[in-house]
Amino acid sequence: MRILITGGDGFCGWPTALYLSRKGHDIAILDNQLRREWDRELGIESLAPIASMDERTHEWQKHAKGSFTAYSVDMRDYDALARTVAQFVPDAIVHFAEQRSAPYSMIDREHAVFTQTNNIVGTLNLLYIMKEIVPDCHLIKLGTMGEYGTPNIDIEEGYIKIAYKGREDTLPYPKQPPSMYHLSKVHDSHNIMFSCKSWNLRATDLNQGVVYGIQTDETRMHPVLVNRFDYDQIFGTALNRFCVEAAADHPLTVYGSGGQTRGFINLLDTVRCIELAAQNPAAPGEFRVFNQFTQEFSVSALATKVHQVAGDLGISAEISHLRNPRVESEKHYYHAANTKLLDLGLTPHLLTDETIREIIKLALQYKDNIQLDHIMPTVTWS
Amino acid sequence: MRILITGGDGFCGWPTALYLSRKGHDIAILDNQLRREWDRELGIESLAPIASMDERTHEWQKHAKGSFTAYSVDMRDYDALARTVAQFVPDAIVHFAEQRSAPYSMIDREHAVFTQTNNIVGTLNLLYIMKEIVPDCHLIKLGTMGEYGTPNIDIEEGYIKIAYKGREDTLPYPKQPPSMYHLSKVHDSHNIMFSCKSWNLRATDLNQGVVYGIQTDETRMHPVLVNRFDYDQIFGTALNRFCVEAAADHPLTVYGSGGQTRGFINLLDTVRCIELAAQNPAAPGEFRVFNQFTQEFSVSALATKVHQVAGDLGISAEISHLRNPRVESEKHYYHAANTKLLDLGLTPHLLTDETIREIIKLALQYKDNIQLDHIMPTVTWS
Repeated sequence: MRILITGGDGFCGWPTALYLSRKGHDIAILDNQLRREWDRELGIESLAPIASMDERTHEWQKHAKGSFTAYSVDMRDYDALARTVAQFVPDAIVHFAEQRSAPYSMIDREHAVFTQTNNIVGTLNLLYIMKEIVPDCHLIKLGTMGEYGTPNIDIEEGYIKIAYKGREDTLPYPKQPPSMYHLSKVHDSHNIMFSCKSWNLRATDLNQGVVYGIQTDETRMHPVLVNRFDYDQIFGTALNRFCVEAAADHPLTVYGSGGQTRGFINLLDTVRCIELAAQNPAAPGEFRVFNQFTQEFSVSALATKVHQVAGDLGISAEISHLRNPRVESEKHYYHAANTKLLDLGLTPHLLTDETIREIIKLALQYKDNIQLDHIMPTVTWS
Repeated sequence: MRILITGGDGFCGWPTALYLSRKGHDIAILDNQLRREWDRELGIESLAPIASMDERTHEWQKHAKGSFTAYSVDMRDYDALARTVAQFVPDAIVHFAEQRSAPYSMIDREHAVFTQTNNIVGTLNLLYIMKEIVPDCHLIKLGTMGEYGTPNIDIEEGYIKIAYKGREDTLPYPKQPPSMYHLSKVHDSHNIMFSCKSWNLRATDLNQGVVYGIQTDETRMHPVLVNRFDYDQIFGTALNRFCVEAAADHPLTVYGSGGQTRGFINLLDTVRCIELAAQNPAAPGEFRVFNQFTQEFSVSALATKVHQVAGDLGISAEISHLRNPRVESEKHYYHAANTKLLDLGLTPHLLTDETIREIIKLALQYKDNIQLDHIMPTVTWS
């Protein structure tokens, strides 16, 4: 297949590109490299230093099974995006190219407006380009489990069958997104649903859980291919951040009581899920939603796991409960369906002590790079 | 009360401003007058010529009971909007200032992107300004009944209590918006819901039905105060458009079979609903939703009514079923709740033959201005 991966220079996009490339697909990555700008803006950087998009692309081209091309394009630039799609003519487009941090979106008004306009306009441009240039192409869009919030009923995969006052319908699952970023993903989902219906496009919305893990078989093939490793308050996600904190002898920073429960997924499963979605495209006109996570954990439970594994490594990682910078429930019901990707053949890499140990060891390897002052949350919701 | 009315130069905003002003409130209208630009862009104009914002404001100041000020401000300009709010210090903000035409949003990609960014950014700016400058102010935001689409179960007012797999929750009503414009309103609703929860703001989302009628007691007080009268394919809504078609001896243009059923409201009730919302503010942190319509009609039923009233006036108005330019169901269940505004005291002006006769007579008065070539739909969904 010919697969265009937008945001292909990012934390999920890069390993996905390499994985699919190694499977023999013709791959184009497209990225405006803005994520690297934000590192400079915030004075942070990936714990494992990453090569430039050009460098890592050149290195990977030696390993690629099919063609592998990189385009430096901003998705808000319709003409440039349209030219790229017209030139590459993808069978599938995997769309990661969005601002993906909740805290970044909550820094202030400018960052909220940026996040929403950037994400919405990029996706709208892509939808119009698909309609006009590649109407049969399959859009594989990254959403987030966070779109659902924490309702007091089971979370289903995108839709819910509602029996109400003697009648019945299957409707889009109600969304209660908890940040300006999560809101942008809900907006995207509605825009894509409408476009599939109106223009007969095919789309799969992958509501992904919190991703943990850093390296994949492919990013390990050469030091220049190493993946981004975020641990700061803005871009670091819970498990990865806890592992870095353990490596740095910093307390594990649990926000509030830690009863917040979420879906999690190993990066190794992320890349496989994308492959499964691509191999099994949505039908024309279909807007399909998969919940892309494999296990549910409370934040406290994760901290306890990291505490234990760190202990085995001789590190005493205290757990510190911080005042929660977010407005969210810390005690709530959480049960979400995730069978659709399993049915397509996903065999999950479940969270093991070994996985945690590996992340801590990687963090220890780069211990000198850890900037402790970027770990504590300063961006607050209220 | 001190009430800021954004979009106060528009079809609903202007009569609302005059009505509330006559009731003794201190009123500021704020408008970038872009709606007048779109008339020039599309080569159309209000059937009844309208005075400039300055002229009509000066005229109204002679009749106003409280203070009455007009600000020429674009809501996407945060600084200008913030200065206005800081200067006027409103108790309530009635927010009409959005691109409000579904066909306009569907002209092409540029118009879709414009509609969504304009509407979302304006509303986000306002929310941040409320948070920072007037946190106790009550936001009264115009949404649309179109946000709900046409589900096969009853439409409730913003939320629905769902019993599911032995558990229960009251969740935001699932939305299936049928155009890029309607989508922008759904995006707004989610953004406002989040802001109320996170920042303890008060907001009422008024999901308004299709508005008919042109003049109010206030706009009739002087010719310079006359309200906008749209009848073209882009900004003209069903009933008003049918009346102009009748006046022009043009067939009544029903899209498809005409089985599409929607909620409708008389402009006289629009202004009263805004007053009721302002008099009964939402609580701090509350995101309240009212369905603002008084009757449900199918498009065919409306056309038949206009046909009959026109007949009584000696006009033979044929009904013409056009190929539907929109992607929508023409036969569907439709039953929506609308009791919340009635409970607050709304006494509806129901659709009578007299109302239709008045609109047709107004159209006849301006018959020479009717541009027939702007009536047939050229903007299509697919």
